[in-house]
This record gives sequence, C-alpha cells and structure tokens, in this order.
Amino acid sequence: MSSRVLSVKSSLIEPDGGSLINLVVPDSERFSREREASELPHVKLTQIDLEWVHVISEGWASPLKGFMREDEYLQSLHFNSMRLKDGSVVNMSLPIVLAIDDEQKAKIGGSSDVGLIGPSGDPVGVLKGIQIYKHNKEERIARTWGTTAPGLPYVEEVITPAGNWLIGGDLEVFKPIKYNDGLDHYRLSPQQLRKEFDKRQADAVFAFQLRNPVHNGHALLMNDTRRRLLEMGYKNPILLLHPLGGYTKADDVPLDVRMEQHSKVLEDDVLDPETTVVAIFPSPMHYAGPTEVQWHAKARINAGANFYIVGRDPAGMSLPTEKRDLYDPDHGKLVLSMTPGLEKLNILPFRVAAYDQKEKKMAFFDPSRPQDFLFISGTKMRTYARNGENPPDGFMCPGGWRVLVQYYESLQAEETSKPPSVVSV
Amino acid sequence: MSSRVLSVKSSLIEPDGGSLINLVVPDSERFSREREASELPHVKLTQIDLEWVHVISEGWASPLKGFMREDEYLQSLHFNSMRLKDGSVVNMSLPIVLAIDDEQKAKIGGSSDVGLIGPSGDPVGVLKGIQIYKHNKEERIARTWGTTAPGLPYVEEVITPAGNWLIGGDLEVFKPIKYNDGLDHYRLSPQQLRKEFDKRQADAVFAFQLRNPVHNGHALLMNDTRRRLLEMGYKNPILLLHPLGGYTKADDVPLDVRMEQHSKVLEDDVLDPETTVVAIFPSPMHYAGPTEVQWHAKARINAGANFYIVGRDPAGMSLPTEKRDLYDPDHGKLVLSMTPGLEKLNILPFRVAAYDQKEKKMAFFDPSRPQDFLFISGTKMRTYARNGENPPDGFMCPGGWRVLVQYYESLQAEETSKPPSVVSV
Repeated sequence: MSSRVLSVKSSLIEPDGGSLINLVVPDSERFSREREASELPHVKLTQIDLEWVHVISEGWASPLKGFMREDEYLQSLHFNSMRLKDGSVVNMSLPIVLAIDDEQKAKIGGSSDVGLIGPSGDPVGVLKGIQIYKHNKEERIARTWGTTAPGLPYVEEVITPAGNWLIGGDLEVFKPIKYNDGLDHYRLSPQQLRKEFDKRQADAVFAFQLRNPVHNGHALLMNDTRRRLLEMGYKNPILLLHPLGGYTKADDVPLDVRMEQHSKVLEDDVLDPETTVVAIFPSPMHYAGPTEVQWHAKARINAGANFYIVGRDPAGMSLPTEKRDLYDPDHGKLVLSMTPGLEKLNILPFRVAAYDQKEKKMAFFDPSRPQDFLFISGTKMRTYARNGENPPDGFMCPGGWRVLVQYYESLQAEETSKPPSVVSV
Repeated sequence: MSSRVLSVKSSLIEPDGGSLINLVVPDSERFSREREASELPHVKLTQIDLEWVHVISEGWASPLKGFMREDEYLQSLHFNSMRLKDGSVVNMSLPIVLAIDDEQKAKIGGSSDVGLIGPSGDPVGVLKGIQIYKHNKEERIARTWGTTAPGLPYVEEVITPAGNWLIGGDLEVFKPIKYNDGLDHYRLSPQQLRKEFDKRQADAVFAFQLRNPVHNGHALLMNDTRRRLLEMGYKNPILLLHPLGGYTKADDVPLDVRMEQHSKVLEDDVLDPETTVVAIFPSPMHYAGPTEVQWHAKARINAGANFYIVGRDPAGMSLPTEKRDLYDPDHGKLVLSMTPGLEKLNILPFRVAAYDQKEKKMAFFDPSRPQDFLFISGTKMRTYARNGENPPDGFMCPGGWRVLVQYYESLQAEETSKPPSVVSV
C-alpha cells in the first residue's frame, strides 16, 4: 500500500488524526502504478489543483487522504471541522476540492478511479474510490468567505471558471511534487520539518505564516515570542518562518522575491539562523480571513508546530470594489481562539507593532503616546519601494529593502518596455 | 437570582449544558425588577425580536442565557456550535441576535444594562452586561444561508431593515411571553413538555417539526417511527407533534389554521391522542435549510426529545427568483447526521412517502414501481385547496382537508372584496 502512515517517534505535537499521512507511492511501485493509471479515464489538473495535490500528498491536511468527498466537504463548509470515526474532531476550514466539468464527468462514467494529469501533461497520480457531487459555487463561496462580493481573487481566478461538479476520492501520487524553480529545497514536507526540529532538539516550535516581506515589526514579535517561550521554561524554541508558496493575488510580492528578502533578513541577523527554520508552505491562498487562518494554523500542527502567532486581520485583504477591509481585523484572532480541533495548538495573539518615530525603530504600539507611532501598511511599503523612496530608518534591514526596490524597478522597466497598445494586467 | 437553573429529575435526555435555563423572574420579584428597568435606557423590540425573547427565556436555546455576544455569534456563524467552559460542545447553528440602530446605540451610551420594551410598548425584560458589536449583515446572511440571493424572506423582512449593530447580554424576562391569540395553551415550555412526558411515563420522545398541514404521508412516517421504536424495545414512545409558531413567510399556511388542521388529524384518529403531544414551538423560521434544521433538532433536545425525524429538504424553500430548490434536498439529512453537539440525539431520516395510486393511500415510495406514485407538493396541495378541488382519496383526512379549503376560500373572499386599486401582498 502506498498510503503509508508514518510512525511519529519525536516528542513534537501529534499530527491531526494521530499519524501523519504520506500519499507518495514508494519508488519501487511507481512504474506499475503509472501503467495502471494510464488505463483510467483522467482529469487534467490546473496549476492550483496541483498545488492542492502537493498539500494533500505530504500530509499538511492530515487526516484528509485526498480531495474531499461530499460528507467531508459539507462538514468543512458548515462546521469548519470534521469528526473522525473515533469521535475526535479535527479542524478543516477550507474545502479542499477538485472541480470537473460536464464533459469530464461524462468521460469518467462509472469508473471508480481516475488518473490525474498535471498542467504540463505528465501523469501525477490517481484518485481512488471516487465520488462525484454537485459544485454549488455560490454556497461554497458564501460559506467560505462570508461574502459573495465581486473581486475575490481565488473566486474569480479559480472557482468561477471551474466545472459544476466536484470529484472526491483517495489520492495517490507517483512522486513528490517539484516546481524546478530553484526553490524546491525550501519546500520541506511536514515529515521533513519534523525531522529538522528533532535534529535541532526543539522543545517548542512556533510558526509564523506570512505572504509579505518581513519587516522589523514582524521580527520584533518573532524575537519577542522566543523570549516569552524561554521565560515559560522552554529551553530551545525554534521559529518556523513559513511563507506561503502557492497561488497569491497579482499585486502580492512574488515568492522568489520574498524568499530572497527573507534570506537577507537572516543574513543581516534580524532573525537568528540558529533558531530559525525557513521553509515554504505549499498551499494556495484564499484570502478568506477568519476561515482561512484556521487552515494556516491547522496545517502547521501537522508540521510539528505547537505555537502559532496570529496578528491583525490574518489572511485578510481589502475589498477590491470598496475601500474597506473585507473582515473585522480582530475576528481572525478571536475565531482562532475558539476553533474546534485546534485545542492542542497554543495561539499567540500579538500586539500591534508600528514605527516609533521617537525611538526610530519598530516597536509595540504604546497607546499612551499614539502620536509617536507611524503605521506602514503593505500598500504604503509598496509605494515607497515603487517610487524608489526609502522607508524610515529601522523599518526593514537594508539588505531586505534592496531586494524589494530591485523587484519594483524591474516591474517598472517591464511596463515601460511594453508597446503602449498592450494593456498591463 | 432570576436566572434559575432547574433541577432535572426525569429520566429524559439531558438538556444542552446539563441543566435547563428559565429566565423568567419569580412573581415576587417582578415589580421591583420592572421598576429598576424603567430607569435604564431601552431597546424597542419588533414582533420577531419578541419571539426570540420567548425562545431564549424558556430555555429552548439552553445554555444560551440571552442574545448572543460577539464570541457566541462568531462561533455560531463559523462552527454552528459553541464550546462551553467545561470543554463540551453544544450545537448553536442560527445566530440568535438583537439588532439596534445608531440612534439606539447612542442612547445606550455606556450603560451596562438595557430595558426591553415590547412592540406594544409594555416592559418585557432586561438585557444585562451588554456588549454592542458590528452587525455585518452580508456576512451573517452568507454564512447562515450559504447564499446572498434576493428574496430570502427572513433576510428581507428582518435583517435588511435592522440596525447596523448587535447587542448581546444576559436576558431576564418579567413574565412568560403570551400572545392572547387563543393558542397560548399550546405553547408549552421545554420544562412543561418534560413534565408532560414524565406524566405520560415516556421512555422515548420523538419530535416532528413542521410548518405545513399534516397529510397522511406525514402520519404514515410518524406512526411508522413509533412502530420502529416499539420494535427497538421502547415501551412507551411519545410523539411530540411540534409545529413552528413564530414568523413564517406570507404564503405559508397561518398558525391558527394549521393548529385547527392538526386537531382534526387527532380527532379523526390519524394520529393517536394517547401517544401524541401537540404543542407550538415558538421559534421564528429562517428558511435556512441545513443550517436551520440543526436548530430545529437542538431545541427539541432541550424539551426532552431523544429522537428527531428528518425528511427531504428540511427548512428549505424554493428560491423566489429562480425555479429551483435553494438547497440540495439531501443535504439537510446528511449535515444533521454529522452535526457537532447533536451526538446524543438519534436522527431518524425517513423514506419518501407519496400517493400510491394503486393502493389509493399515502405509502413509502417503492422504486420498483415508480409509475404508481404521485408526488403531491405543498404548492400542488395549495392549488387543490384554492380551486376547491379534492386531492386523491387518502391524501389527508377529510376533517383536516376541510380546514384548508375553508382557509383558502376565506382568502379568496378577502381578495375579491378588495377594491381593484389595492395590490394584494
């Protein structure tokens, strides 16, 4: 059997469901499995489908063993959690589903298994014991985002163009998913991360999820978290700096630029490489705020994290059509503190950091002297970088900042080199 | 203290949270409480707010002690359940909230308590230790209904016109809520129902929620359920025939007509009065399908029911703007079977009953001879009654049918007596 359950010997937090799932077939079986699969009706995956295959196959969504069947999907939509056969509850806030259209459904007919073909035409794996059920897109969107407003990036780019059926089943993957973009060495599986934490003899692992460049405010709270954990009696807390590596919206900073920026932050000793593991979290981004932050936290349990840092408006965004935050910025923290299935994870809500103009550094906001603090939003940061301006001293380490400036310069160069008739998207 | 916890001595199923809540102040304290409340800023209740006060005060929503504060509201929206201090989980699928507008919020100012004034101006109760938070209507609608489609009755009549703030707090009610409509004797509280079941020495209570007239198909499955419970070894299963008595949409049959119809069904011995308790469930109707059916089931736990009958498309409706069911008719049953907090309730999904044209009676649908069965929808039933036609023999007992025909005749008489310029709504 390829759906192996790995024994967990470390003293790290238990994965959801008690054991980590690895759905990659052993090398010795790959050839025969691929041959068997070639006889099956198949489903062509999009790039984002493939990212989900990656996520599921490595056990980030453990105990989920494949794309959701209808009972799992409905539990996710209604309860943001799933009850296992033993009565225990695991968190499962995002529907992890594979959509197909009428034509694909007809081709599959009565087959109980389907082959999965990657975006470039290569065989990726098999979905076994399939179930096909209706893809009620509006209900999925309404219950996941709490809004059906136009302009939600994942909705417009992924759900709206998708087929009207969902296909669930047990996943089997022929070989580990690789991207060959020079960043694969950062893509550690939950199993690999657990080994790394064990090697470093971590007695606490605190995860920081991000999809933006690291500024000194982030660093402050990561270092402060480490200090608090040491005070609590942990001897060797390890930081998992865990940028999201899957789909992000067009105006977010791309993964390669972010990884370079994060490297500089460690080179410049803003974060201590001795106590920091930098890795890529392969999930695509939904921008679904309080619903998605649960997924971000839950997946890190499976990688061994027992502390999770959460800030203002996690997984949130501004509504594209209106000038307001999509979510109440406090709801993410509040919802996460009450989430079923996350009881074993310690949620660390953090105080807001801002630029202290008196001390000329990022500091925790002091409500007794609000006039001294400058809030530098992502938009503001991007504006500085785009205009070649420098942010205030102490906002970000110089090496990290240079990476961003170079990225925005390259964007502008690209735009000005386009013929004027081409609309930039 | 008026928020008394009642001791539960019976052998019936435990109420949610372990003890039933009764928020009506004792007679001896009423006068002083009313006087204290008259000094407070107050909130004027709509008729539907008052129905919720009724629901909460009698303990249908136990362990909820008042209108939801933000942490309860968010748990309801995201998880359809609430975690109690002892770690246990109770179901709580509908947000039970009280909305106020900017002006009312300003008037309340920093007061920690507010008085509640009924629609006719009489003092109803107090909300203590209040919390005021944002009423994000779109999020509430999207997460509760799984759609933001126009034409949802509760949305259009209750939520859209409501204020932009929600006010939560502990409820205290001066005296039991009464309607003086000749039906109050049917409005038994969970406590009164438990006493009645005890008096009848019930060893199983099976609840049937409805908002429509009882036809012989319903009766078939209620009688069949009793038979199954006897087969399971129960000696005295009691049916709780429990029509919903709060807000319903305009084209549903009104409560007084339904109660008369239900009486005829018992008079005509379609259901056995010896083993049936008829009472009114005071909740308003959301028409929120799989989300609402959880509330319908959960509330009956508090009244002592340990079996709950669920059919096709519970709490569903047709979309007003499109010719289709709002929900997948199987989702209600499926979601209910997986709902957190309902583990102690036995869910009894029932087979579809239809009119068997060969046997000339309502019978469980037999898929081996589909051509013999006639499905008579609510719309079809209303059309028969409105046109003064009779449905097939055996569809409904004659006494019950006459009640409906008379109701629709009276409607038509009303409409034809209106001056033509008045649009009927």
